[in-house]
Amino acid sequence: MSDPVVIVGGDAAGMSAASKVKRDAPEREVVVFEKGEWVSYGACGMPYYVKGDIESLEDLVAVDAETFREERDVDLRTRHEVTAVDTEAETVTVTVHGEDRTFEQPYDDLLVATGAHAIEPPFEGLALSGVFTLHSMDSAGDVRSYVDEGIDTGRVQSAAIIGGGYIGIEMAEALAERGLDVHVFEMLPHILQPFGAEAAEVVEDHLREQGVELHLDTAVEGFQGTGHVTAIQCEDGTHDCQLAIVGVGVAPNTDLAERAGIETGETGAIATDAYGETNVRDVYAAGDCAEAENVVTGEPDHVPLALTANRAGRAIGQTLAGDPTPTGPIAGTAVLKAFDLEVARTGLIDAERAAEAGFDPASVTITAGSRAHYYPGSEDIQITLVGDRETGRLLGASMVGREGVAKRIDTVATALHAGMTVEEVEYLDLAYAPPFSPTWDPVLTAAKVLGGTLEAE
Amino acid sequence: MSDPVVIVGGDAAGMSAASKVKRDAPEREVVVFEKGEWVSYGACGMPYYVKGDIESLEDLVAVDAETFREERDVDLRTRHEVTAVDTEAETVTVTVHGEDRTFEQPYDDLLVATGAHAIEPPFEGLALSGVFTLHSMDSAGDVRSYVDEGIDTGRVQSAAIIGGGYIGIEMAEALAERGLDVHVFEMLPHILQPFGAEAAEVVEDHLREQGVELHLDTAVEGFQGTGHVTAIQCEDGTHDCQLAIVGVGVAPNTDLAERAGIETGETGAIATDAYGETNVRDVYAAGDCAEAENVVTGEPDHVPLALTANRAGRAIGQTLAGDPTPTGPIAGTAVLKAFDLEVARTGLIDAERAAEAGFDPASVTITAGSRAHYYPGSEDIQITLVGDRETGRLLGASMVGREGVAKRIDTVATALHAGMTVEEVEYLDLAYAPPFSPTWDPVLTAAKVLGGTLEAE
Repeated sequence: MSDPVVIVGGDAAGMSAASKVKRDAPEREVVVFEKGEWVSYGACGMPYYVKGDIESLEDLVAVDAETFREERDVDLRTRHEVTAVDTEAETVTVTVHGEDRTFEQPYDDLLVATGAHAIEPPFEGLALSGVFTLHSMDSAGDVRSYVDEGIDTGRVQSAAIIGGGYIGIEMAEALAERGLDVHVFEMLPHILQPFGAEAAEVVEDHLREQGVELHLDTAVEGFQGTGHVTAIQCEDGTHDCQLAIVGVGVAPNTDLAERAGIETGETGAIATDAYGETNVRDVYAAGDCAEAENVVTGEPDHVPLALTANRAGRAIGQTLAGDPTPTGPIAGTAVLKAFDLEVARTGLIDAERAAEAGFDPASVTITAGSRAHYYPGSEDIQITLVGDRETGRLLGASMVGREGVAKRIDTVATALHAGMTVEEVEYLDLAYAPPFSPTWDPVLTAAKVLGGTLEAE
Repeated sequence: MSDPVVIVGGDAAGMSAASKVKRDAPEREVVVFEKGEWVSYGACGMPYYVKGDIESLEDLVAVDAETFREERDVDLRTRHEVTAVDTEAETVTVTVHGEDRTFEQPYDDLLVATGAHAIEPPFEGLALSGVFTLHSMDSAGDVRSYVDEGIDTGRVQSAAIIGGGYIGIEMAEALAERGLDVHVFEMLPHILQPFGAEAAEVVEDHLREQGVELHLDTAVEGFQGTGHVTAIQCEDGTHDCQLAIVGVGVAPNTDLAERAGIETGETGAIATDAYGETNVRDVYAAGDCAEAENVVTGEPDHVPLALTANRAGRAIGQTLAGDPTPTGPIAGTAVLKAFDLEVARTGLIDAERAAEAGFDPASVTITAGSRAHYYPGSEDIQITLVGDRETGRLLGASMVGREGVAKRIDTVATALHAGMTVEEVEYLDLAYAPPFSPTWDPVLTAAKVLGGTLEAE
């Protein structure tokens, strides 16, 4: 192999792959092209930076560029944008920002790790000052500066958040804690769609208790203002705001790949095989731009989350170092802090989606204590557990509560990876001590109730 | 079936079985004989009662006798002791305490749920006032009264705890929080033997920080005093104490069963099949007096813990109601609060025990953060993960840390039930958000490191 491993994109998937190749096969040359300045950053930490929990944007960086270059021997080039891939010649075309220079780089293996971008809906007034999408480290810096200054001067008092997804809810907390009046606008009947209505309703009540105003079932039309944003316009009228965060979702960055004949799947993200290889030999894709296999359905899925990216990147790195390693299926496990609540999900929760995947879903929702009934400080945990009527197989779960939720979901995620039935979950030997759980863990109680339902039918 | 289901023992296993039979087969008569006053109590809560976190002993009762009798239609008779079983005639002999009355009770099915007793070592001075074993609700009441009065009068200042197991460490916390000088005496080189030395050392350091004095590798010989205990005598000398708690372990109550020809296994507890049935037809055993199958070794094990008892009782209840249900294997999962620490275990940790079970164990110990590196408040979690060199199979784990441990162990327990390899654990899709976990959960990091070790060998 005379040409290097070339990686397009220097965040989670790209840098995990680069590090793994160099660790397992130090003799292989690895070149990473990152079009921006930041590498290996924790995008998930951006709301906490805006909130003020984290001092500086640099704190979010897991491993800095210097370490990749000096200690890990990765040829990392920031401000280098790959503008084209020639899969026949096995070269990429690179433009160097700030230098107005373009060159060709040959590769033996290519990893497309171009990530995703925040969707910008066709709202009027998107270009007004004070309207942001939280899609990059630089935009997080901009939002924080704008909030800091707006609060100092008293100019910013109301914030509109468009989209009740992960980032929307985390930003609602961040901005409310900064003292702003926060309004969340959600087109659907509930926020946090992937978590299901049962969990969403608990979060909605909690957000309202915290003073956040929810506008559900509400389509946004655009923003008003001259220079700065002053109001948000919806179907039902306008609401004052001096700051707006648009977080209606992300879409995979597939342009570069598609122009090179690299195929996308039904989800719109780049299709890969079990090893992360695309339809083009020696071209791999990983992270927010790529599909991954859903462990419940066995079908390709698109779950643009940090661990998916890290894992796939690392596995592909191992493969490129000579040890073929599947990227592994995902369960779509996710957790979120919403003020004092933890809310988590894994697998298939939505009945319609489960039916589409060929299951006959049944679900139960139970509430149980987070500690023994007599131990002080017990909080309610609400669990929705979903199973398949036909096979008894566990399909998914959501959970919400003030403690003991974030990592309790992993029990269900692990059971999904193992293909367990609801009855098998019922008989797991889970940890019990009065300060941490009732004797029957809430997961076991939910499985007992769901098991009873499945049997009765 | 003309004769009832008879259950000997009214705690977790017995009452779970009674409730399940009556729920699923209301027409079956169920008689429970309990020799004491208390039924269905949370023995695990006793240290917290002594500590003062819980107001009254009654609070520990999950379901009271009245509810069993009135709402669940269980013929529950307290102060009724079964003194003999005739497995040929299918009768038990019952003595009624306080009435000096004895009668025979026929059964169709018998469940032996006689529990365990605290081991009383041959110490001198065990009968002195102020020396307790914490083996029953009444003894918990006695300890609390003694502590309350001793503190009020200033007579009790130093407490000696003999045995560094679950109860010993929970009592150390309880008594230290009450303001006593606490000394823990442990015969072995480390406390918390089932959790392994790696976790134990972290707990030992923490106990010392909290002012608890540890006497490891120290055999106790007895107690001194006239009337009240005044000192504990060890190999290396005597130490003043005005209170002593002996918690050196529990042993299954098998006398009644053995006298009736019901066999015990190698662990000393009553041997059962997958359905909890003993060597005698129609005679079942469950809870602290019975064996259960270890999910890792496939061999009978004796783990006298609450969930094991509840689960087996419930399964046998279901079987006796006409739906044959295995009691299910156990992983020996356990968790403990030790002051500010959570310490947990599951599966096989001890190398010697793993080797005896036919494995070739390898283990790693890693430390990782409980939150994203940049998120405030992250605490170290130490994980020891054990795998089998030959098959790559996961065997067990211990964990210790200030947060995120108690329920994180369940991920490993679930993986053990599924018979996963270390590599499969490495690829679990576990939950991530900055307040709750690093991107790679500590369990995944431990699996990656152990996986690397297993591969390298």
